[in-house]
Amino acid sequence: MTVLADVAPVPDLLGLTAELVDIPSVSHHEQAIADRIEAMLSGATHLEVLRLGNNVLARTRFGRPMRLMLAGHLDTVPANGNERAVVDAGVCHGLGAADMKGGLAVMAELARNLEAPSVDVTFIAYVCEEVDQRHSGLGEIESEAPDWLQADAAVLGEPTASVVEAGCQGVLRVDLELRGARAHTARPWMGVNAIQRLAPVLAAVAAYEGRRPVIDGCEFREALQAVAVEGGVANNVVPDSARLVLNHRFAPDVSVGQAFASIESLLSPGLDAARGDRLTLGASSLAAAPGLGHPLLARLVAASVSPPRAKLGWTDVSFFSARGTPAANFGPGEPTLAHSAGECVDRSDLELAYRTLRSVLTSADT
Amino acid sequence: MTVLADVAPVPDLLGLTAELVDIPSVSHHEQAIADRIEAMLSGATHLEVLRLGNNVLARTRFGRPMRLMLAGHLDTVPANGNERAVVDAGVCHGLGAADMKGGLAVMAELARNLEAPSVDVTFIAYVCEEVDQRHSGLGEIESEAPDWLQADAAVLGEPTASVVEAGCQGVLRVDLELRGARAHTARPWMGVNAIQRLAPVLAAVAAYEGRRPVIDGCEFREALQAVAVEGGVANNVVPDSARLVLNHRFAPDVSVGQAFASIESLLSPGLDAARGDRLTLGASSLAAAPGLGHPLLARLVAASVSPPRAKLGWTDVSFFSARGTPAANFGPGEPTLAHSAGECVDRSDLELAYRTLRSVLTSADT
Repeated sequence: MTVLADVAPVPDLLGLTAELVDIPSVSHHEQAIADRIEAMLSGATHLEVLRLGNNVLARTRFGRPMRLMLAGHLDTVPANGNERAVVDAGVCHGLGAADMKGGLAVMAELARNLEAPSVDVTFIAYVCEEVDQRHSGLGEIESEAPDWLQADAAVLGEPTASVVEAGCQGVLRVDLELRGARAHTARPWMGVNAIQRLAPVLAAVAAYEGRRPVIDGCEFREALQAVAVEGGVANNVVPDSARLVLNHRFAPDVSVGQAFASIESLLSPGLDAARGDRLTLGASSLAAAPGLGHPLLARLVAASVSPPRAKLGWTDVSFFSARGTPAANFGPGEPTLAHSAGECVDRSDLELAYRTLRSVLTSADT
Repeated sequence: MTVLADVAPVPDLLGLTAELVDIPSVSHHEQAIADRIEAMLSGATHLEVLRLGNNVLARTRFGRPMRLMLAGHLDTVPANGNERAVVDAGVCHGLGAADMKGGLAVMAELARNLEAPSVDVTFIAYVCEEVDQRHSGLGEIESEAPDWLQADAAVLGEPTASVVEAGCQGVLRVDLELRGARAHTARPWMGVNAIQRLAPVLAAVAAYEGRRPVIDGCEFREALQAVAVEGGVANNVVPDSARLVLNHRFAPDVSVGQAFASIESLLSPGLDAARGDRLTLGASSLAAAPGLGHPLLARLVAASVSPPRAKLGWTDVSFFSARGTPAANFGPGEPTLAHSAGECVDRSDLELAYRTLRSVLTSADT
């Protein structure tokens, strides 16, 4: 716990967060906020500042034995009546306040103010995290400027209420189509009702109990949810098709293939391949192991005021993890408020995140 | 069985059916076929021929003690690659051949040729049976020319393969909405999945066993089918709403209200009003009792070569039944082919329907 001993001044993080909230940056429209971040960092002589599209990089070149990546996305989800920042009683409300302009403010100020850290620092602010993965600025960087990504470990500034949220669960979509045979509803025994065939499948999904593996001391918690259902031909026709979409979250100790196989095995009693039922694996995203054994992440855990916990949602830590760079989520803001009209971040949380990360970057115990 | 003794000549019903098939008459476009029917009957001096929009009436005024209504619709469902009549080996294929231009041909020829029946005859050819009930020509007639409907009993010329299909089952729609609570699919225990709540409801519907009451010697068979299902917010959101539509067919010994109450009682264990679940009665159509005790319908049963059976689907017999006029379905054509691309009617069936109805209209045993 080096946090309590840290008495260095903290910049006006709440003011900067509000300023960033007031710069609209819905996905695909990040130019203005990228300009602002770039301008803020360009004056720091200890930083190399680069730009790729609307992705911004700032990094030190001190030749330290280790390099920590601080990464955050510039974009927000669409506005929801909360376009303008409102600061009241030490709390900044507004679109992106928690997810994640508060985190950007903390990371940008750390990069700007840390003139002699004990580790080298790379700060990347990137576009399009809130939309389909193929638009992500991280993918653009990986193909156009892969040297930006060189680091020993990474911290994603997603809102975690300044708790280390380790790794992330993977996610996969399962598409199920059940088949039947049409008939007139006055003579349903002439057909097979595909919608009614959903009953045992939905019962199996509802009864599902996810595994809770503990990895690096963090308990993950798998989940399976029906997220869409559709079926029907006409009000007087026994329907011959019903479609169900499932969303599965799996812990980082299994692969996408293993996770899908477990869902197949759960649902197979309700399926009849001979009838034409189909269970297919849709889009998937890799899980990421916690990686808390890495010295930089261990230092982050040690510097945090709360014990680490598993990240149950999916984040870009899996991007870094898949490249062999251990990564954790850590940033100001209540994670459950992300994407809600009421999202906000408070000054004490911003300052706690700032002090904790500063401690990691300045600690001598490497 | 007067049929076998009937040696009077039968007109070319197959040719007339083919001619009617070749006059397009999709619902709301019945003018040309109404003109053809009107022209065919106008020359018969024993008939009073009237027109209301594209509804056509032809009736005798012999002052007989009883009057039998012969009624049939002029419209068809939309074409399905079968717009033109094809006559081959004594069978007429084409749109409306079975449902119900064959029946129209039989009834129109009966009206034209029966110069001295033992009962008065009213023949009504009406529009828009195949679309929403509010467009039905019968409703137009009821409000504009109610005297057309005066009759002691009615025969609807729907395709029944020349078997008396008695009465009809009622039909009602049930709309069910189940509620839940949204949450992120990575933390589904924070919400309630409305789609998964369908499981016990669909299981109850699938396990439903309809009553089979026997009325006037005809076994009805109730049915309940899920005909549409819908739900889902986004692939990463626990859905807070799921909608299910049910189609219920009920026998004529219960009212719409009683039928709905039985479905409510079946489904109520899976519903939670406190959560906002709603079960509502949608559109409904009355059932019709068989009414085979009426002398004219009893005569039809006696004249038929096959025993009567219950009509499980809904037809306009319920329109007449609700007005106190016993009605039965009886016409040429296989009922299960109605609305299919392969619908057809054969000469022997047309002639059987014609001879059977002629026997009813000419028999002296009133």
